Amino acid sequence: MKGSILITASCFLLMAACKPAKQEDSPAKFFASGKWIDLTYSFSEQTLYWPNNPTGFKLDTQANGITPAGFYYSSNAFSAPEHGGTHLDAPVHFAKAHQTTDQVPLEHLTGGAIVIDVSERALKEADYLISVQDIEAWEKANGKIPDSTIVLFRTGYGKYYPDAKKYFGTDEKGAGAIPHLHFPGIDPAAAEWLVRRQVKAVGLDTPSIDYGQSKDFKTHQVLLAKDIPAFENVANLDQLPVTGAYIVALPMKIRNGSGGPLRIIAWVKND
Amino acid sequence: MKGSILITASCFLLMAACKPAKQEDSPAKFFASGKWIDLTYSFSEQTLYWPNNPTGFKLDTQANGITPAGFYYSSNAFSAPEHGGTHLDAPVHFAKAHQTTDQVPLEHLTGGAIVIDVSERALKEADYLISVQDIEAWEKANGKIPDSTIVLFRTGYGKYYPDAKKYFGTDEKGAGAIPHLHFPGIDPAAAEWLVRRQVKAVGLDTPSIDYGQSKDFKTHQVLLAKDIPAFENVANLDQLPVTGAYIVALPMKIRNGSGGPLRIIAWVKND
Ligand SMILES: [Zn+2]
Ligand SMILES: [Zn+2]
Repeated sequence: MKGSILITASCFLLMAACKPAKQEDSPAKFFASGKWIDLTYSFSEQTLYWPNNPTGFKLDTQANGITPAGFYYSSNAFSAPEHGGTHLDAPVHFAKAHQTTDQVPLEHLTGGAIVIDVSERALKEADYLISVQDIEAWEKANGKIPDSTIVLFRTGYGKYYPDAKKYFGTDEKGAGAIPHLHFPGIDPAAAEWLVRRQVKAVGLDTPSIDYGQSKDFKTHQVLLAKDIPAFENVANLDQLPVTGAYIVALPMKIRNGSGGPLRIIAWVKND
Repeated sequence: MKGSILITASCFLLMAACKPAKQEDSPAKFFASGKWIDLTYSFSEQTLYWPNNPTGFKLDTQANGITPAGFYYSSNAFSAPEHGGTHLDAPVHFAKAHQTTDQVPLEHLTGGAIVIDVSERALKEADYLISVQDIEAWEKANGKIPDSTIVLFRTGYGKYYPDAKKYFGTDEKGAGAIPHLHFPGIDPAAAEWLVRRQVKAVGLDTPSIDYGQSKDFKTHQVLLAKDIPAFENVANLDQLPVTGAYIVALPMKIRNGSGGPLRIIAWVKND
């Protein structure tokens, strides 16, 4: 009898203790335990584009002032190449007939992320190639990268944006500037490793997943042929934990696009 | 002694029962229990803009084919007015010196959402104004709208997109078409109600939060003056539950923008 009362009391305790867990079913409540961090550079005349683009981002004022009806109103139009600033590379960028911007599944644009910090070496060597060894060293320290992870590489180059001379290695314009590009990227062998591990997407804080000196853009070819999208010029990677962030990376939904402006944010749990 | 053993046993049970809740701490695991739904129309030459826009969305091919180096490559540039297709209205659109597109806080672009379905009346009356009574009827049926909610109105007009004649009420172009706009919107009195309830953001499946016949855009003025952003031409609202969805609405981050292309998605728990 005494035991039975105790069991009843403990069941009551059990329910009370588990109640907060049930509330966690609500995503709004779940997310209240952390914060969203913006990993996106804004688009402006400072936005960096590949040197051979004849124009960059342009905002044209259509209206800005008091209308004849007496209220304030502002409105603009804009134009830009797809590949510049914080942006998506859709598979079709380097893989004929593969997914266009609007076709990249949300499944590849959302998910748990890890951050591999290679900044110590990459900030010393402008032509640094992120290697299989870098990824394996991360796994040795942090455990196996789960399947379906978004893998972000931090080269430290984010601190140079938007200073073209430091970020691209040159502030020259035109096709003639391309041989003078120097910034870190991902070794094609590491790209093949990431394909085998079935990552969802790959991102980094440089202008391109291939390094500045690449002639064949092999890392683009390897990842995009396998429908693994890339996020380039990702901002604020120094604000993310090594594991545990959740990424939502939403490109402007351009039908038939090869990429485009990306708004990428990360949810991080409060300390 | 017997009681003490029972208590120990129940504490063990308690921990075991609560273990799944602890795993729920990982957002990737949390989100695996549901799916993301895209509430965004793609941008193309079919994208609908206000009739007086001289141009709409335009995609220009920069490259599409095999390069001299032997690999496939495609790339485009694009141009568009800020306000068309699925898009954001930033506060500065109607409220001088208020937040520009890049300044709208993520706090107002992410959060739990409710869906108020007014389609039965709105589909019969092109000039329908969503009223305070509609919101109060929703609360009577579903409970009080929590503070800091994203409120989405479903007029049913989504099924007409991108048929301008049905969706706008006219497929004429130019300033002369504006008096012929007929589609539902939100009554300014309802907008004031939403301000008092401190909602995070307001969205709907028509071209504008003000109805087609509005001359003073009073609902825009009321909401945007209070830094409550608006989401217009939101797609697929019929796929959302009345409560429990979580919205992530990410605009292209246009510095000094008055709005812009919005990629809006909703997470919905699996049945
Ligand atoms: Zn790119
Ligand atoms: Zn608008």
